[in-house]
Amino acid sequence: MADKKLVEAITSMSEDFAQWYTDVVKKAELIDYSNVKGCMVIKPAGYALWENIQRELDRRFKETGVENVYMPMFIPESLLQREKDHVEGFAPEVAWVTHGGLNPLQERMCVRPTSETLFCDFYKGDIQSYRDLPKVYNQWCSVVRWEKETRPFLRSREFLWQEGHTAHATEEEAVARTEQMLNVYADFCAEVLAIPVVKGRKTDKEKFAGAVATYTIEALMHDGKALQSGTSHNFGTGFAEAFGIQYTDKDNKLQYVHQTSWGVSTRIIGAIIMVHGDDSGLVLPPAIAPTQVMIVPIMQKKEGVLEKAAELKSELINAGFRVKVDDSDKSPGFKFSEQEMRGIPLRVEVGPKDIEAGKCIICRRDTREKIEVALSDLNDTIAKLLPQIQSDMLERAKAHLAEHTYEAKTREEFEQVFAEKSGFVKAMWCGERECEEKIKEEMSVTSRCMPFEQECLSENCVYCGKPAKKMVYWGRAY
Amino acid sequence: MADKKLVEAITSMSEDFAQWYTDVVKKAELIDYSNVKGCMVIKPAGYALWENIQRELDRRFKETGVENVYMPMFIPESLLQREKDHVEGFAPEVAWVTHGGLNPLQERMCVRPTSETLFCDFYKGDIQSYRDLPKVYNQWCSVVRWEKETRPFLRSREFLWQEGHTAHATEEEAVARTEQMLNVYADFCAEVLAIPVVKGRKTDKEKFAGAVATYTIEALMHDGKALQSGTSHNFGTGFAEAFGIQYTDKDNKLQYVHQTSWGVSTRIIGAIIMVHGDDSGLVLPPAIAPTQVMIVPIMQKKEGVLEKAAELKSELINAGFRVKVDDSDKSPGFKFSEQEMRGIPLRVEVGPKDIEAGKCIICRRDTREKIEVALSDLNDTIAKLLPQIQSDMLERAKAHLAEHTYEAKTREEFEQVFAEKSGFVKAMWCGERECEEKIKEEMSVTSRCMPFEQECLSENCVYCGKPAKKMVYWGRAY
Repeated sequence: MADKKLVEAITSMSEDFAQWYTDVVKKAELIDYSNVKGCMVIKPAGYALWENIQRELDRRFKETGVENVYMPMFIPESLLQREKDHVEGFAPEVAWVTHGGLNPLQERMCVRPTSETLFCDFYKGDIQSYRDLPKVYNQWCSVVRWEKETRPFLRSREFLWQEGHTAHATEEEAVARTEQMLNVYADFCAEVLAIPVVKGRKTDKEKFAGAVATYTIEALMHDGKALQSGTSHNFGTGFAEAFGIQYTDKDNKLQYVHQTSWGVSTRIIGAIIMVHGDDSGLVLPPAIAPTQVMIVPIMQKKEGVLEKAAELKSELINAGFRVKVDDSDKSPGFKFSEQEMRGIPLRVEVGPKDIEAGKCIICRRDTREKIEVALSDLNDTIAKLLPQIQSDMLERAKAHLAEHTYEAKTREEFEQVFAEKSGFVKAMWCGERECEEKIKEEMSVTSRCMPFEQECLSENCVYCGKPAKKMVYWGRAY
Repeated sequence: MADKKLVEAITSMSEDFAQWYTDVVKKAELIDYSNVKGCMVIKPAGYALWENIQRELDRRFKETGVENVYMPMFIPESLLQREKDHVEGFAPEVAWVTHGGLNPLQERMCVRPTSETLFCDFYKGDIQSYRDLPKVYNQWCSVVRWEKETRPFLRSREFLWQEGHTAHATEEEAVARTEQMLNVYADFCAEVLAIPVVKGRKTDKEKFAGAVATYTIEALMHDGKALQSGTSHNFGTGFAEAFGIQYTDKDNKLQYVHQTSWGVSTRIIGAIIMVHGDDSGLVLPPAIAPTQVMIVPIMQKKEGVLEKAAELKSELINAGFRVKVDDSDKSPGFKFSEQEMRGIPLRVEVGPKDIEAGKCIICRRDTREKIEVALSDLNDTIAKLLPQIQSDMLERAKAHLAEHTYEAKTREEFEQVFAEKSGFVKAMWCGERECEEKIKEEMSVTSRCMPFEQECLSENCVYCGKPAKKMVYWGRAY
């Protein structure tokens, strides 16, 4: 069955990008649709990606002092309602539990769409003194949002994520933590996923329900659409006031804590697919690839071939690489396509003639370049190639981002570039929500962020002509 | 606040074991009760234990070929009902989601109490040929069972676990996998948690809803009560028939798959507490302890003390140990109690006089033995002490298990031993469910398992006197 599914060509990106995406997700065996409407099954190849993402992010979190915890998955309705903006933002899209066993509940509970309210309820009891601060907690869990339209990884009723929730004595500390975690996300994206991002602040219209400020990393997909890939929120004392989270400071005065939250979800796997993939399938950056090298024995029934393949595999594994041998009874050509579909960074081909000549062929997934190397140089060559692929992929993604980032100084330019091009458009904005809403309504584009690196492109708002306050990245988004 | 909480003595084990357990759980800061009834907050010290358990188990799973996946958390009612015994076992204790956003659902869904039905539904679509077998999948997730009485780690409405679900071509393979995973659990308990277990098969009365056979590992707590610590189920073709999971074999004939499932939950943390703990709090086996060595600087304000502590810490960390320095402004005595409460295996005390003399004091948590060592020998001594503590703890737990395992050859002995003692009682059984039910009713003890290592203690059932078929471990259980 696997054979049949894979040899069928996938839709090309240029023909139908959305269909290409779905084809890749299915044929690289990352996800399967389930009979639970709007929910997905994450298959081994997809979950292994998430495990690698978790491991890398978790290590970076812990280096900054984060501790992991686990909160209940249910939120009683009265708890969800405690912060006004927050409940308005989330109540329309939660799943409600009304019965436990055979009995109706006294108070219905939702399955967490996010856990600010639970962390606040916990912090209220756990924080008394300045000595109890800061609290820098995180949890890895699944959350539920009752979406109508769903797409694998990008939008589903249940998804996996991490959510950090912190409490601090001062505003400065909370702001610093919000920015620190955004930088952790941005560095992770660049270094591990080979995805460059634009860092900035969301407009008030686009910020998180209950936040004072939301910071975001925005990545550009191959089709020129933006994907919000991680967010970090500064709550100020809003939640603390709603929940009564106070501490006694060094002068014995009661103060409200300052809070933040920040999260990255399985959605980021969608970014990996749409930034790096091509018409043959997935292309995985070596740093995140569950298998970095696949050895394909040629004429594997000939004496000594499988043995040599196994020998090379253990040498490479000992050198610290993630390696497999494909010794299935499929043809080499089929194995090649399959590994291309799965995005494995390097393929090593080795057959009887190669062994005799003491060499093998390495093929790069990203460039399809074929390299002949002496078997004795295999380890060293792979040790050089994997970081090379990683940095080449980042450079190509950076070039794509630069090529698809446009500037508009006038309303005419602004409309024209979105009519003709696909990508980010930098333009000045007056800061008025009304103006932002009209842009969305008329042009179907949204403000992605006010980047930290501000430029002054013109004096006036690109839409209404009033004096400009901020440069904004605009785009069409997933 | 932390100060005040910790210096209060905890209830002694002999006075009130249940209260001692609750005190330790709270004061070692493993868990907090939440305002979500029946659900707990797992705090950093508790979650770090779970992370270590996960890492160790996951590595062992993967060595046997297990792949991780993620299934939806919801089960539509019609799916839950597909297997008759299974729905009867679980339907009375599930949480029901009836509304998504503002609208009632067409079909209500429960939050998974376990995921057999979801895996079966997935396997039905994913398995066609013998080439697709075996499937050896596992997921780490949380599950919900609407319990009335709850206790931290031991029984809560939501808990964390792993659930493995496999599908095989033959009965032999499924039976072998069931046993293999039980052995993985038993080895993990002995080697990592220093907990000896009794391995055996559950009686039909006690087996999992829908299983042909359930295997279990049973551990004995300090108070002589049993804790079921992990189970592995062989389903035969029961679920496959209910869900229509068939594959084409090599002769092109349709066959049902043979399935298994197996799980270990956060409940195992309860076992760690109740097997190893003492009246000063938690005692953690080094292999699972998030912090293995705590360095306590004495007279830390004196010049050079904190510097030396930091130096020793980095030496020990470089040697591969998990080490912290407690440089808080608490008194050394308070720090000692706190680390005892948290169960940290080794404490290193180092003050100005020690530094001058080139030595320090090591204190073992398990035996409270104090050892003076030269600073130059610290790494080597700790490298010897940690495995020593690990094996001493296992030996003590084994001795406790042996001392509290009794034999009963007659009904009189059987009743007497349970009246006077607390522990496992080995006794012969006729194999009749009715007899087992009467024993439970009259004596409030349950069959824990029919151990793999069978003995013939007498010819007749200890209760009814009919010819005996099996030796059973009986006990009172959590």
